Amino acid sequence: MPSYTAPVDDMQFILHDVLNIAEADIPGYDELDRETTQAVLDEAGKLSAEVLAPLNPVGDAQGCTLENGVVRTPEGFKAAYDQMREGGWMGLDADPDYGGQGMPYLLQSATGEMFVSANMAFNMYQGLTHGAMSAIHAHGSDAQKQMYLPNMIEGSWSGTMNLTEPHCGTDLGLIRTKAEPQEDGTYRITGQKIWISAGEHDLTDNIIHLVLAKIPGGPEGVKGISLFIVPKFLVNEDGSLGDRNSLSCGGLEEKMGIHGNATCVMNYDGATGFLVGEEHKGMRAMFTMMNEARLGVGLQGYAQGVVAYQNALAFAKDRLQGRDVTGPANPDGPADPIIVHPDVRRNLLHQKSFVEGARAFTFWGAQLIDRAHRNEDAQAEAMISLLTPVLKGFLTDKGFETTVLAQQTLGGSGFTREWGLEQFVRDARITMIYEGTNGIQSLDLVGRKLGLNGGKTVMAFFEMIKAFIKESEQDAVLKAQFLDPLKTASKDLQAAAMWFMSHGIKDPNNALAGSYDFMHLFGHVCLGYMWARMAKAAHLKLEEEGADADFLEAKLATGRYYMTRQLPATGMHLRRIESGAEPVMDLAAANF
Amino acid sequence: MPSYTAPVDDMQFILHDVLNIAEADIPGYDELDRETTQAVLDEAGKLSAEVLAPLNPVGDAQGCTLENGVVRTPEGFKAAYDQMREGGWMGLDADPDYGGQGMPYLLQSATGEMFVSANMAFNMYQGLTHGAMSAIHAHGSDAQKQMYLPNMIEGSWSGTMNLTEPHCGTDLGLIRTKAEPQEDGTYRITGQKIWISAGEHDLTDNIIHLVLAKIPGGPEGVKGISLFIVPKFLVNEDGSLGDRNSLSCGGLEEKMGIHGNATCVMNYDGATGFLVGEEHKGMRAMFTMMNEARLGVGLQGYAQGVVAYQNALAFAKDRLQGRDVTGPANPDGPADPIIVHPDVRRNLLHQKSFVEGARAFTFWGAQLIDRAHRNEDAQAEAMISLLTPVLKGFLTDKGFETTVLAQQTLGGSGFTREWGLEQFVRDARITMIYEGTNGIQSLDLVGRKLGLNGGKTVMAFFEMIKAFIKESEQDAVLKAQFLDPLKTASKDLQAAAMWFMSHGIKDPNNALAGSYDFMHLFGHVCLGYMWARMAKAAHLKLEEEGADADFLEAKLATGRYYMTRQLPATGMHLRRIESGAEPVMDLAAANF
Repeated sequence: MPSYTAPVDDMQFILHDVLNIAEADIPGYDELDRETTQAVLDEAGKLSAEVLAPLNPVGDAQGCTLENGVVRTPEGFKAAYDQMREGGWMGLDADPDYGGQGMPYLLQSATGEMFVSANMAFNMYQGLTHGAMSAIHAHGSDAQKQMYLPNMIEGSWSGTMNLTEPHCGTDLGLIRTKAEPQEDGTYRITGQKIWISAGEHDLTDNIIHLVLAKIPGGPEGVKGISLFIVPKFLVNEDGSLGDRNSLSCGGLEEKMGIHGNATCVMNYDGATGFLVGEEHKGMRAMFTMMNEARLGVGLQGYAQGVVAYQNALAFAKDRLQGRDVTGPANPDGPADPIIVHPDVRRNLLHQKSFVEGARAFTFWGAQLIDRAHRNEDAQAEAMISLLTPVLKGFLTDKGFETTVLAQQTLGGSGFTREWGLEQFVRDARITMIYEGTNGIQSLDLVGRKLGLNGGKTVMAFFEMIKAFIKESEQDAVLKAQFLDPLKTASKDLQAAAMWFMSHGIKDPNNALAGSYDFMHLFGHVCLGYMWARMAKAAHLKLEEEGADADFLEAKLATGRYYMTRQLPATGMHLRRIESGAEPVMDLAAANF
Repeated sequence: MPSYTAPVDDMQFILHDVLNIAEADIPGYDELDRETTQAVLDEAGKLSAEVLAPLNPVGDAQGCTLENGVVRTPEGFKAAYDQMREGGWMGLDADPDYGGQGMPYLLQSATGEMFVSANMAFNMYQGLTHGAMSAIHAHGSDAQKQMYLPNMIEGSWSGTMNLTEPHCGTDLGLIRTKAEPQEDGTYRITGQKIWISAGEHDLTDNIIHLVLAKIPGGPEGVKGISLFIVPKFLVNEDGSLGDRNSLSCGGLEEKMGIHGNATCVMNYDGATGFLVGEEHKGMRAMFTMMNEARLGVGLQGYAQGVVAYQNALAFAKDRLQGRDVTGPANPDGPADPIIVHPDVRRNLLHQKSFVEGARAFTFWGAQLIDRAHRNEDAQAEAMISLLTPVLKGFLTDKGFETTVLAQQTLGGSGFTREWGLEQFVRDARITMIYEGTNGIQSLDLVGRKLGLNGGKTVMAFFEMIKAFIKESEQDAVLKAQFLDPLKTASKDLQAAAMWFMSHGIKDPNNALAGSYDFMHLFGHVCLGYMWARMAKAAHLKLEEEGADADFLEAKLATGRYYMTRQLPATGMHLRRIESGAEPVMDLAAANF
């Protein structure tokens, strides 16, 4: 069975030495001193390692079952859920006005990484609730907030997002679920939704479904979509549970992974729904949920990589095969541990340099969200909006790749159920698909985000990197090993953006055909930037007395690997982008 | 449920228009005219599509069961196996002296691709037999050949390879299974072998295990390994089955994929074994099996990509989401088929350009094997020896990647069991691991094959490409679109080889740290070369009257995609290689 150890030291390094959160001038961050975050992370890490991780293979093997409309989650899930609830983890960053702890989103992300690494399928139950809570908080009426938020924050109720229908996933303009206005101001919701994560289960007393539907007679397409609260049990004025609503789970999806999470077909048969916000303005509210969910999915992607890497590393230190070509490392044993072999190290460093870079990138993104919300900073809001598709698309592609590489470290053992690596691969796979496939992320990036604020936001990104390089380059070693490669990569990204601008006007397919490569190019530049920041922090810290030199030197060595072995991908992506639409559009659909 | 269509036209194009097998001057190839191969491929394609493919999800869902030492294969496997046996497919390329059909290995590969695409787990039963047959044919005594080959070729007996033990996979020098010589000339075999594909099952009357073991008192390490025939049922002088041998299946491995194939723990409890070849010379014989098996695994890798791509393509033509940015392609429908979208096309062309290139590469490799064996051509033997790790490592890495991309084309549907794409991903995953992990392939390539014949073989490879470019470059379009990119890629490969030579002497880790990138660089050059040859053939054929212009133009467009979008990876691999050992070796094992 695989094991999990919470990477508290690395998180502390990122929070305090790289992001310097104590000096970030964001309301609420002043409470986040080193001791506080240490205590919170230790606690979350303990829960993750001791309670959630052991349940991960159990959930995978047992899956969920549906009987007479009731979904049973795997053995032990309910007890673990209650333990998380009682620990107050569900409302860590929620509004104190409704019972939340009001901690920054950054801390929610750090603890979230642990929970997801330990047990992704399990953590989705509360993850979906979090998204639904955010949408109600941002767009619901005061009465709705009072009615739903406290129980959701406390964890005794959960939430879902209902978008997809059998005939439409991405293209929400096609949805058919209808919402007929009733005289009492409610709506009758009728239709079928599919792939509803946590749509039905036995962990909470009530489930608050957020459902996209169309009010008959409204505008065509996405402009006619409204958002509704459709609770499993209607809630009485006094807050007690009332009638069972006319909705049911019609089936569970059999899928490749995340077996511990119930993926439901949801049937709404004239269920009572409550409008959130205005009629026909559902997409805006849904985007609140989706943007948060996309960041959460990016985190899922690399978090699976984290735990997969940990287990690959343990195997590589333990497994004896072959000899170090430069002389035996374990002369008294029958062979050397495979970590002596250059190609095994290459594989491990590929994993390690990605997950540590991804963690820094995600934490930085979470900090931008805090700045956007807590400081009402429009530039931070725009920046995280630009980065969201990169965080989702790049981190899940590479996170999945990392689980595959980790599985490879184990050789044949990696393919067996027993060692658990193959579960990480199967679970991570969904992150590239849901909340908008990564292809859709790349379209969002190139089609919408590049042009955000007339291109000013992406320009600000480039300026930020340039400024960082400039203010750091007096450190000659940092310059040679980190800043120069970052500059090259950033230039590749700028060249790609310029190419889109000059060729996309002539033919939009010139930009769209390169969108996926652009997303990866952007992701590499972001991770290169994070590695440069981490290296700078490590250099500074190494000069302090009592610094953990092993940790910091390892950080630098891992960063050098990223800069020399991963970052050169930017040149390849640029070349592909510059080949334009032709190679992609030439072939007639009928002749594929 | 996924479907499968045998790619007969593409195979015919490669066999007759690209490889020109009728003019290849290889004994047996003169019989392979267009009509003959068409008939054989049609027949194999029909069997694959109608019998094997429908059993693929059945095998995945049911898996194999072990009860009282008996392994039951999934429903329908036995009937399908008998049908293949009766069709004479098991001995297609086997020696006619023992009942085989004596067809070239090339045709075995072509039909093999179909069987594997249709049902990989099923086809492994006969695939393993083929390897065992080859080893007995090459190294067994006349009596052994007479005793075992006819029934194996006919298919009523099957075969296995027994290498791995719990404590050693790659490092065979560590094996503990022992073979004690008996007075009657036989050996008592005692030990445990794991991960034995098709080690026990209900498809055949007897199973002929080939087992690596050590004779006590022999040399240490791999030099003390001998190869034994250890049949499940001993065979009497008259060929009838005798006593049950002292060996048994001790368990079935639970694994990520290929559930239809029984992966067995095999216990040998003083079983009677018969030495193959000389004592302590087992590794040589095992290499005969392994080399063939490695080519077979490379084929498995891309063959899973083939069927995954077919199903992704069907989905992309059918699924309606969004609109073509340049104007509706399906104005009367609610949306356009997703194949209009540039990023969906990019994904499909990535798949298509790989699998068609991989097919050509594999067929060329099979032709080299035929030339090596049938013409006793030492240069062809050396060339295929050089290419074997590339065929295995590159085609399985990229074949797996192709299944993942195909799954992505389906969005959420790709993650569900129902659509079957996720099975291709899970099944393809093992190909990167077994018969030597791809890391091991890269070591074989850089550590042994590059220096083969003092480097003359790799030089011959470069000369071959150079000569091809030279003799083809009067076609200006071919030159610009295919030959120039091939030349660049080939130069990258030569530069990498040179870098290894000049830096590997100083420190072998300089070469080993770049071995994996080198394998991929090499693979891209091989596929670039195959695409250039295919493009040249297509250009010539387009001038013929009655040529299938749609097919040939599609071939050229697909090739152009490969050259512009996949081949630029060579530059990235070269840069990584040239960064040498340092980024990989710097970090102390304890500080990972």
